[in-house]
Amino acid sequence: MILPEIAKLGHVALVTPDFEKSLWFFRDVIGLEVTEEKNGTTYLRAWGDFEHHTLSLTPGDRAYIDHIGWRTKRHEDVEGFAQLLKKAGTEVRWIEAGEEAGQGRAIRFKLPSQHSFEIYYDIEKPKADEKTRSVLKNQSHKAWNRGISPRRFDHVNIATSMDVAEIIDYLGTQLGFKLREYVKYNNDTVMAGWMSVTPLVHDVAVIKRPEAKTPNQLHHISYWSDNAQDILRAADILKENGINFIGPGKHGITQAFYLYVCDPGSGCRVELFSNSYLIFEPDWEAVEWTEKDHSIGNTYWGDSVMGKEMNKPTIEA
Amino acid sequence: MILPEIAKLGHVALVTPDFEKSLWFFRDVIGLEVTEEKNGTTYLRAWGDFEHHTLSLTPGDRAYIDHIGWRTKRHEDVEGFAQLLKKAGTEVRWIEAGEEAGQGRAIRFKLPSQHSFEIYYDIEKPKADEKTRSVLKNQSHKAWNRGISPRRFDHVNIATSMDVAEIIDYLGTQLGFKLREYVKYNNDTVMAGWMSVTPLVHDVAVIKRPEAKTPNQLHHISYWSDNAQDILRAADILKENGINFIGPGKHGITQAFYLYVCDPGSGCRVELFSNSYLIFEPDWEAVEWTEKDHSIGNTYWGDSVMGKEMNKPTIEA
Amino acid sequence: MILPEIAKLGHVALVTPDFEKSLWFFRDVIGLEVTEEKNGTTYLRAWGDFEHHTLSLTPGDRAYIDHIGWRTKRHEDVEGFAQLLKKAGTEVRWIEAGEEAGQGRAIRFKLPSQHSFEIYYDIEKPKADEKTRSVLKNQSHKAWNRGISPRRFDHVNIATSMDVAEIIDYLGTQLGFKLREYVKYNNDTVMAGWMSVTPLVHDVAVIKRPEAKTPNQLHHISYWSDNAQDILRAADILKENGINFIGPGKHGITQAFYLYVCDPGSGCRVELFSNSYLIFEPDWEAVEWTEKDHSIGNTYWGDSVMGKEMNKPTIEA
Amino acid sequence: MILPEIAKLGHVALVTPDFEKSLWFFRDVIGLEVTEEKNGTTYLRAWGDFEHHTLSLTPGDRAYIDHIGWRTKRHEDVEGFAQLLKKAGTEVRWIEAGEEAGQGRAIRFKLPSQHSFEIYYDIEKPKADEKTRSVLKNQSHKAWNRGISPRRFDHVNIATSMDVAEIIDYLGTQLGFKLREYVKYNNDTVMAGWMSVTPLVHDVAVIKRPEAKTPNQLHHISYWSDNAQDILRAADILKENGINFIGPGKHGITQAFYLYVCDPGSGCRVELFSNSYLIFEPDWEAVEWTEKDHSIGNTYWGDSVMGKEMNKPTIEA
Repeated sequence: MILPEIAKLGHVALVTPDFEKSLWFFRDVIGLEVTEEKNGTTYLRAWGDFEHHTLSLTPGDRAYIDHIGWRTKRHEDVEGFAQLLKKAGTEVRWIEAGEEAGQGRAIRFKLPSQHSFEIYYDIEKPKADEKTRSVLKNQSHKAWNRGISPRRFDHVNIATSMDVAEIIDYLGTQLGFKLREYVKYNNDTVMAGWMSVTPLVHDVAVIKRPEAKTPNQLHHISYWSDNAQDILRAADILKENGINFIGPGKHGITQAFYLYVCDPGSGCRVELFSNSYLIFEPDWEAVEWTEKDHSIGNTYWGDSVMGKEMNKPTIEA
Repeated sequence: MILPEIAKLGHVALVTPDFEKSLWFFRDVIGLEVTEEKNGTTYLRAWGDFEHHTLSLTPGDRAYIDHIGWRTKRHEDVEGFAQLLKKAGTEVRWIEAGEEAGQGRAIRFKLPSQHSFEIYYDIEKPKADEKTRSVLKNQSHKAWNRGISPRRFDHVNIATSMDVAEIIDYLGTQLGFKLREYVKYNNDTVMAGWMSVTPLVHDVAVIKRPEAKTPNQLHHISYWSDNAQDILRAADILKENGINFIGPGKHGITQAFYLYVCDPGSGCRVELFSNSYLIFEPDWEAVEWTEKDHSIGNTYWGDSVMGKEMNKPTIEA
Repeated sequence: MILPEIAKLGHVALVTPDFEKSLWFFRDVIGLEVTEEKNGTTYLRAWGDFEHHTLSLTPGDRAYIDHIGWRTKRHEDVEGFAQLLKKAGTEVRWIEAGEEAGQGRAIRFKLPSQHSFEIYYDIEKPKADEKTRSVLKNQSHKAWNRGISPRRFDHVNIATSMDVAEIIDYLGTQLGFKLREYVKYNNDTVMAGWMSVTPLVHDVAVIKRPEAKTPNQLHHISYWSDNAQDILRAADILKENGINFIGPGKHGITQAFYLYVCDPGSGCRVELFSNSYLIFEPDWEAVEWTEKDHSIGNTYWGDSVMGKEMNKPTIEA
Repeated sequence: MILPEIAKLGHVALVTPDFEKSLWFFRDVIGLEVTEEKNGTTYLRAWGDFEHHTLSLTPGDRAYIDHIGWRTKRHEDVEGFAQLLKKAGTEVRWIEAGEEAGQGRAIRFKLPSQHSFEIYYDIEKPKADEKTRSVLKNQSHKAWNRGISPRRFDHVNIATSMDVAEIIDYLGTQLGFKLREYVKYNNDTVMAGWMSVTPLVHDVAVIKRPEAKTPNQLHHISYWSDNAQDILRAADILKENGINFIGPGKHGITQAFYLYVCDPGSGCRVELFSNSYLIFEPDWEAVEWTEKDHSIGNTYWGDSVMGKEMNKPTIEA
């Protein structure tokens, strides 16, 4: 059997106790497009996303990430991962086609940290309706329709009270993520790791939060914009909407130009970001940041999240 | 045997009849950093490039691209490609380690269009000297040292008088490039194709130029900048240096924000570009642009190269 | 008597044969805010404009600029200009307070080229309604509410078949505009002049169009954005709305980063622009551009309007 | 007699205990051009400045601003101000032509806060030498030659332990500066005022620093860049040069996009900034910011200077 492979991050399923406010935030302020509403769940994507959705909003009693979805390279990789994971002692649950709108058969399972992951291959890539369809053949929706209007979904950053090194090892061994950068403290504790299956510096980051109430927390999800200037414009838009945030600033790690803001409906944190860099090297050696240079690694310059509320775990994932 | 795979574009070896002018253009105006001078060849890279060089300049009687270098995913892929290519009837020549500075053993061969490709795996990734080394651990040189200062080498665009569809087929079948976008005219002639092994829309493009004197011509090489604003600044810098260009503008195809300029020493055309988009979908269906929408595909908006000198083949490749 | 002085450009009154389309263009695509509708006229302004309106739209049989409004430095300057102009043989007509919404008593008169100017001092500076009011005390409306969303009204460019030098002289002698830059051809004909009472390089430009059917034509009106990137975003927005344009590019004269687009309802041309420079020197010597450097003066780089439809006179003014 | 008027801010004369480091900072990192060296003083200006210099560097025992120079509207205004100031009880000292390179006869005097001001009219506007001269007729030097490369000198911000309202009154009554924005605390204390003779929101700001050791302190001087993106690039350049700073961020007051950095040679603080807005209204009512909204007024968003070292008085002025 060819080893199954993950191709890319797909979506995040967010449950929110204030659905209306979350919908306002993600649709009207962030500017995502609604592709479908089904069984009480609203499915959204950015104008440059191709899949059916990159975020789903479902009303619930409390805020949490129901699952983080990943797309495989091949149809048979879903079954492949199911077998591999079971063999490794991970409990795997099948999700039938259509349970999630636009999506085929998928599996769900939990990381050792109890973060819920989903793996699928079959997914609709619906054309936008005529009103919002881009005039460009290689773009889903018209750009700049509304609000901040980022191009595409980019990555997730999960927080855990567990040993980060263990989660990094699991993501690498079981799922094929390569470690791109990491922070290791003087006592050899790995504080955070940035991993990817794509040339992005990270499709997923794992970050230590000893104070987290559960081992499965979200730090943030992230949407990407083409230009740093778009993040400055986002700052204006957020303030005009009465929403506070941290940033802008530039991380040393990942070289991301960032701004962090929380959905006022759910508390789910969103990183709006641009720039960063791509890794095409097949023999990339993970960049190590020490305790001493953690500060510059976190905040190369700009408004820092370090030591602030905006850097705490947010909701369960 | 596992099929050999290309990981990324590596470099272009440019021979120039006016070495001093080419060096001035690429080092002082574009702002590349010199990593080594060896046997009369000067090796350069951008501040965000990791390999030993992404461009080499060698004095010669006439201007041409000696070869376009591609890095494989694994060490053994070089040998793998050598075997596969021979089997397919392509003549393969071995280049010994060190013949090209910083590089291990490699093979060279010609496309059916006679464009010269090189495939290698072993390559030095030298740290920059202290004076130009970035304070960031994940970046080679200080950014913005000099001139336009793009981040990294991005792609090559080759022109041919031959059947483009045949070259696209060869690049796909023999080398694993996936077709991302293409232009097909009413008479079913493929006018151009954009192909990649990475999520970039193109690592290589092939473009039909019936008027080309030889089937192996270069259209341009390209360096990437993080922000569209950087391209506008590049325009100012070029004009202050007395160098004309076409652009800026935005291609529909690839969604690149571009500016085209020729090295006054060699005539080698360089595309300075930013933005564009990434393709993570494993089942991407190549976007077809017809004769009718070739115009918007070429120039979504801005200063168009169509029908201008700046769109002709430049030098042999 | 202290000589009356013009403080600034105020507004343009546009009559349009397709009111609905013009309103859609200026409100929804450009993104101006409606401050009032009165007697069939709709009054608009940009989010950073302070006066009641900088553009008014009135339905009519044909497209034309009814008048171009200028605000004086002092209340008594309106009367002062009325006297001075009469003395100079210019016919002056009084406009009663309230005839134009939000505006006090004003005068109207025609330049020798028959362009209709209005001079006023009293003008309301209404707060935006709560829904669109900025959270910033020094800004009228929320920025980025809709469409391109420029900051403020900037200048007008009038075209004439008459002797441009004569109009420049009139604007200088009668109205106090200082000449900042001009184009003079080998035969000593002044082809265009850029003039201002403020540190902007031009509040008004006069441009020769021998082919104009009447001596009083409009070349364009202009709204200003804070960053060049905003003009690139405007280009995307216009294309997504199916509207063509010329640009972006950079003028040598004025150093403006520009994009030219016509209101599809009236044909009134709008320059979306940013950057440029400010003149604080009290002894500024007007910069002369010759026939030889007219080309670089017009298009320093980028998509040129020279010789194109987009450079012709548009509507009467 | 016509009342004398100030046209614009001219320059700042900085004395520095580490001349070499200050020269490196302003010439190589900020990227100013040297126009002349005379009698141990080096005169610099930005590429878009027209006057002989906007900053002078003189070696000295300690760091201080020798004077802040202002240009009048007319030649005779220098004499006019001399008379008016004497009449008001201010001691006036004449500076002979040529004492300051490129400059004619001038007067110097002190504000009630002991800040030293200079008033002049005659000033050379030298063309740049051929090597650095811009190809544009309306621009002094080539843009982007070196370092951050801002366009022009913009404003000064002076700090005082005295009553700010008194200084604002003096600047208004004696020198004609108009108050544009100010901060007034609940106890009616004016904490800061932004004033200008031009449409810039401020040519000079006065800011209360009760802890200042002398009443005549500098808060910062400021250079302006065309685009917000240029400030982000400046941040990269400063970090690559090992220089820390505060920002970027956006002030509510003035709407400036800012970054604050200190010359490592003298401690003189420099604000690199862009955006902001222009005031053309002749009847502008100064915008009042209260104690309650001082926070948003100071930091609309981004990295705040409030409560930080970077917000303290720096050197005597």
